Amino acid sequence: MNPENSVLRAILNPRSVAVFGASGDPAKFGGRVMHFLLKHGYRGRIVPVHPSAKEVLGIPAVAQLSAVSEPVDVCLLALPATHLAAALDDCGRAGARGAVVITADFAETGAEGAARQQELIDIARRHGLRIIGPNCLGYINPHLNLALTSSVALATEPMPRGEIGLGCQSGSLMASLISHAQDCGAGFSVAATVGNQADIELCDLLEYFIEDAATRAICLYVEGLKDGARFLELARRARAAGKPVLAVKAGRSAAGERLTQSHTASLAGSYAVWAAACRDHAVILLDDPEALIYCADFLIRFGAPAKSTIAVISPSGGTVAVTGDRVSAAGLALAEPGAETCAALRTLLPPGRLFNPLDVGGLPRSSGLDSALTAYELLAKDPAVGAILIAVATTPQLEDKVRQWGWAAISGGKPTALLLTPGSLVDGARRALKEIRCPYTNRLDDALRVLRAAVDYGDALRDPPPPAAPQAWTEGPRRHVDGLPAGRLTEPETKALLRTAGICTTEDVLAPTPDDAIEQARHIGFPVVLKGVCRALVHKSEAGAVRLGISDEAALRAAWQEIRCGLEAHLPGTALEGCVVQPMLSGGIELIVGCRWDAQFGPVVVVGSGGVLVEILDDVQMAVAPVSAAHARRLVEALRIAPVLAGARGRKLADIDALADAIAHLSELAAALGTRLAELDINPLLVRESGQGVIALDGRATLTEQTR
Amino acid sequence: MNPENSVLRAILNPRSVAVFGASGDPAKFGGRVMHFLLKHGYRGRIVPVHPSAKEVLGIPAVAQLSAVSEPVDVCLLALPATHLAAALDDCGRAGARGAVVITADFAETGAEGAARQQELIDIARRHGLRIIGPNCLGYINPHLNLALTSSVALATEPMPRGEIGLGCQSGSLMASLISHAQDCGAGFSVAATVGNQADIELCDLLEYFIEDAATRAICLYVEGLKDGARFLELARRARAAGKPVLAVKAGRSAAGERLTQSHTASLAGSYAVWAAACRDHAVILLDDPEALIYCADFLIRFGAPAKSTIAVISPSGGTVAVTGDRVSAAGLALAEPGAETCAALRTLLPPGRLFNPLDVGGLPRSSGLDSALTAYELLAKDPAVGAILIAVATTPQLEDKVRQWGWAAISGGKPTALLLTPGSLVDGARRALKEIRCPYTNRLDDALRVLRAAVDYGDALRDPPPPAAPQAWTEGPRRHVDGLPAGRLTEPETKALLRTAGICTTEDVLAPTPDDAIEQARHIGFPVVLKGVCRALVHKSEAGAVRLGISDEAALRAAWQEIRCGLEAHLPGTALEGCVVQPMLSGGIELIVGCRWDAQFGPVVVVGSGGVLVEILDDVQMAVAPVSAAHARRLVEALRIAPVLAGARGRKLADIDALADAIAHLSELAAALGTRLAELDINPLLVRESGQGVIALDGRATLTEQTR
Repeated sequence: MNPENSVLRAILNPRSVAVFGASGDPAKFGGRVMHFLLKHGYRGRIVPVHPSAKEVLGIPAVAQLSAVSEPVDVCLLALPATHLAAALDDCGRAGARGAVVITADFAETGAEGAARQQELIDIARRHGLRIIGPNCLGYINPHLNLALTSSVALATEPMPRGEIGLGCQSGSLMASLISHAQDCGAGFSVAATVGNQADIELCDLLEYFIEDAATRAICLYVEGLKDGARFLELARRARAAGKPVLAVKAGRSAAGERLTQSHTASLAGSYAVWAAACRDHAVILLDDPEALIYCADFLIRFGAPAKSTIAVISPSGGTVAVTGDRVSAAGLALAEPGAETCAALRTLLPPGRLFNPLDVGGLPRSSGLDSALTAYELLAKDPAVGAILIAVATTPQLEDKVRQWGWAAISGGKPTALLLTPGSLVDGARRALKEIRCPYTNRLDDALRVLRAAVDYGDALRDPPPPAAPQAWTEGPRRHVDGLPAGRLTEPETKALLRTAGICTTEDVLAPTPDDAIEQARHIGFPVVLKGVCRALVHKSEAGAVRLGISDEAALRAAWQEIRCGLEAHLPGTALEGCVVQPMLSGGIELIVGCRWDAQFGPVVVVGSGGVLVEILDDVQMAVAPVSAAHARRLVEALRIAPVLAGARGRKLADIDALADAIAHLSELAAALGTRLAELDINPLLVRESGQGVIALDGRATLTEQTR
Repeated sequence: MNPENSVLRAILNPRSVAVFGASGDPAKFGGRVMHFLLKHGYRGRIVPVHPSAKEVLGIPAVAQLSAVSEPVDVCLLALPATHLAAALDDCGRAGARGAVVITADFAETGAEGAARQQELIDIARRHGLRIIGPNCLGYINPHLNLALTSSVALATEPMPRGEIGLGCQSGSLMASLISHAQDCGAGFSVAATVGNQADIELCDLLEYFIEDAATRAICLYVEGLKDGARFLELARRARAAGKPVLAVKAGRSAAGERLTQSHTASLAGSYAVWAAACRDHAVILLDDPEALIYCADFLIRFGAPAKSTIAVISPSGGTVAVTGDRVSAAGLALAEPGAETCAALRTLLPPGRLFNPLDVGGLPRSSGLDSALTAYELLAKDPAVGAILIAVATTPQLEDKVRQWGWAAISGGKPTALLLTPGSLVDGARRALKEIRCPYTNRLDDALRVLRAAVDYGDALRDPPPPAAPQAWTEGPRRHVDGLPAGRLTEPETKALLRTAGICTTEDVLAPTPDDAIEQARHIGFPVVLKGVCRALVHKSEAGAVRLGISDEAALRAAWQEIRCGLEAHLPGTALEGCVVQPMLSGGIELIVGCRWDAQFGPVVVVGSGGVLVEILDDVQMAVAPVSAAHARRLVEALRIAPVLAGARGRKLADIDALADAIAHLSELAAALGTRLAELDINPLLVRESGQGVIALDGRATLTEQTR
């Protein structure tokens, strides 16, 4: 175990807690904290800290924690910002191991707040004290009956105890999730908020949960990661430990990204990169916080299905039709029950029924209860079925049927999502399921999320883990990179850089004059392409600086003049550095392959459809760099254009091996460039037919000043 | 008013009801019906019909209804199938106006059941009696305290009274929706099930609701329409009457389509056609039955927003970030509040906050309540804001804030979706909203559905209604169609048909011999295209029957032989009828334009991307035929390839006028072909640059035997 983690373990499992700002008034933060500590029956020592009160809610108070002889494990600070520094110093002198800072108005409000936050950290560091927060709502540890939080969610009882570990950047979101878990019968090992993550951060919690025997599934609400690489390493460990990690990430949209900054001072990074990293590391990415609880509870209860096929059962013909439609629309595959199952179902049901989705409505009252259970059991034991969705609607003997189904599911059936579509009319059935600890949802959206998550997690576990990162770069290319200027590279510079990474490009040499260009064109052979070179020029085509199909010397001289005039019109006062001459290549498929720097995960490689498809199709796949060729091939196969590359409809198979190699090489270049990388695009990369390789026809790059 | 509709009005608003199969046992259908009639306090006359009992639940029973002197308005038949015919005859002789047949096992089980169903209809017709069902669950009219149903949803009280008219093909779905409406404070004018629609069908209910003063929004659960054209006509009338129509349609997937058949004997038709027809007629299409109630209630309460922009408010920074992300992901636009609003918000809130999505958390307790309301009011009065989403999370004074927001919303604020993300923790706030009749949802999915529906409905109302159908076909083309054989047409036959409709095609003339083809090629000018013609040949390219770029006579002769041999290999024993010669045309953009017959709406016209895009992109738009050129242009503009047609990135503008004309002409041809149309595809239609028109390069068609 990471030694730092044993500190976090002590903080989250304290034998004693101190409350700075303790009060008897539940309208105050420190008052609610005290009330919840007592209400939920925390059995450790509680030390209220108050400048003048002798006791708070009957518990003796102290004015200074460092005056207490026995040190406490953790202090909660619900104080105005001006009192925090002194209190934190007191905590440190008292030998506390951790402090939970609820107070807000730190880094999330800007530079001044960030400076105040740094002061807190400095004090804590001096004392070897770890901080949770600031701008958080504390945590709960239901196994200790400990609610060290001011969240009003703890006003209701009992605290939901269970096997979900929750790490949450937002305090009120934790409150919603606690309430939600209470309602649906799920619970937490620990649920903790980290706010601005000034010290203890989500990855610390993630590591704790991986090592914590009481935790079986891990839910995260993330606004920004402090260390993307550490997150991915922990995701690998969680996978190895058999604990699913489920996450909701804010900052997916431009507005959301600005909000994560103003809410918890978090840099959101690119959501697309985040999604790719999660997919590659078996992290279940959800779009909805409450669904974290549904999905985690389901996976704890049932594990991942062994197959990705779904069977649907409902006692309502309408509900089963709608549910079948939605299962298909969600991209989930309906199972095809085997012949034996079908034969058995045929004897149970009126004629003419489908076997999946299966309508078990309208059965005779005398045998309906038994038949409904038998139908479930037949599908559950069919090896063609991976998971089952029971969409409950009103039907005779509903409560008995639901109890039977639930019991069969949790006692050895297939992973089964029970969906109760009617409202409070069927609350009896909900109570019955809660009693036997069988998960259920109330909306089809959530049932589909649960199945999608379970199926994807099962699929991810059957895939090999992402291939290990390839060897680091050798010294030669590194020296080349070190010699490059910051800012935009020209096309010849970009291509030279690509060639050091082992990527085939056209062999552009800058021609300073038309005569040089003609010399090159003779060597290449007409017709040729002529392109203007100028560092300041970003969009060559728009400036008329790309001339295709030049058939002879005269045409080349004319084109040169046109490029020069076009550049002057486009960027007045800018001089043409020269031109490059390239062969006219045709055939093959144009892709865009690039790399860029992500705020969370660092170097990222991207591949997508090129040409006209860029405008009408968001056909892009990406991964954190570097990637192996095998991984690159998986990215290519996930493109929408993949069937075309694979030679569909009598086309020639494209050179996917060479493409995968080029992507892998570019990803290594991206990793080697490190923080110097801003972005680099090959557009287009021409993918020729199998055996003929790929070639970069154009490229551009921007490097930063930063050195590694 | 339609005179038939006054009969339906009498049936749905009866002064008296008879119950065949009446019983005191609530485990029986007829027992539940009797219980519900009494429990909910129906004040009309109730006549239990029972072969032997003198009374049922204290109400005098009769053995034969026709023995009663005063006729009843409606009879409910909860009887075994074998007793139905006699009972229905009794109803008819007694002068009843309608009969509700709950019994199942009719057309939904196959041909025998369909025959039994027809017998019922025959009996009813003889007596001028209308039938609801069979295979339905009856209806409720809460304004009369009338529950004429055996649905267990009526076991709870009170019956939800309100302004939603619900027409539902599934009985248990109605039950779920009644329960759901009860929970969220919505209610019905009438909720009725129609099951197999043997007589009274969804469109009858739709027409009733349009004319019914107590109904303000209409919800439909549809498995199959009996008359698509009537549905569209009624949709126009509902739009004119200012009553939104909301629908869920089953049979979207292959499995769902088979289910609608086995559930209510409904032909589902194409879901894509249904979706297009709904979009064109301002019918709000939802994917979820319960969402019908949410969306209808919202529209009744708030109407459609005047703009499609959304403002988001939440007292939780995490919730507001997630909500902002999801609003964007749902394709809804975030409003940009005006300068005045921003200035006012700035004085209310801590520094550094965004104004939309707006985090109103962490405000001082003393002013927080007022500020939360003021923030809402500022956004509500901002003309840049169309609708507001308040995502409620735990916060101090939550219940008071929610009550204030709800009150402000319903008393003149903007259309406002209140979302209560925590679970039962905030049930107090839910009760407060129900008391003031302010709609709310519990899941973000539903809040987004509500906003999407409201925004789309508002947008649809601002669009002009679909242009009226163009003039019918003239006699000439009609005679041409009448002369065509059933089955597959050859390419020259298809093109000849297209030309009668005014669509430009290559002028193919069948060349029976290579010499004829050479003659034609000389006339056209080499290079040419040579295509084999054979009625039995469906996929010409796969049989090698299309040869491009033939440059001279020798090549043409060789190509002819290759086509002949290829055909023999592909379809042994099939003779080549000849070949057609076409010019090699290049440039332009290839689309697919076609028409086909839909089981619900009849002739439908389709336009989509052609070429390689067909494989990787589902880029298709469609509409019920015929369409005007203006309507056709809207279809084209909705294609993903539209920017390319519009000349993006320096391309030439395509001839969209000619394309729209061709689509409109094809749609007229489709309408003129009527039931003779199976399918007709132009693939590709070459769209050339503006002013140069479009030309059908290839085409195929299949006609049916049926005559109009």
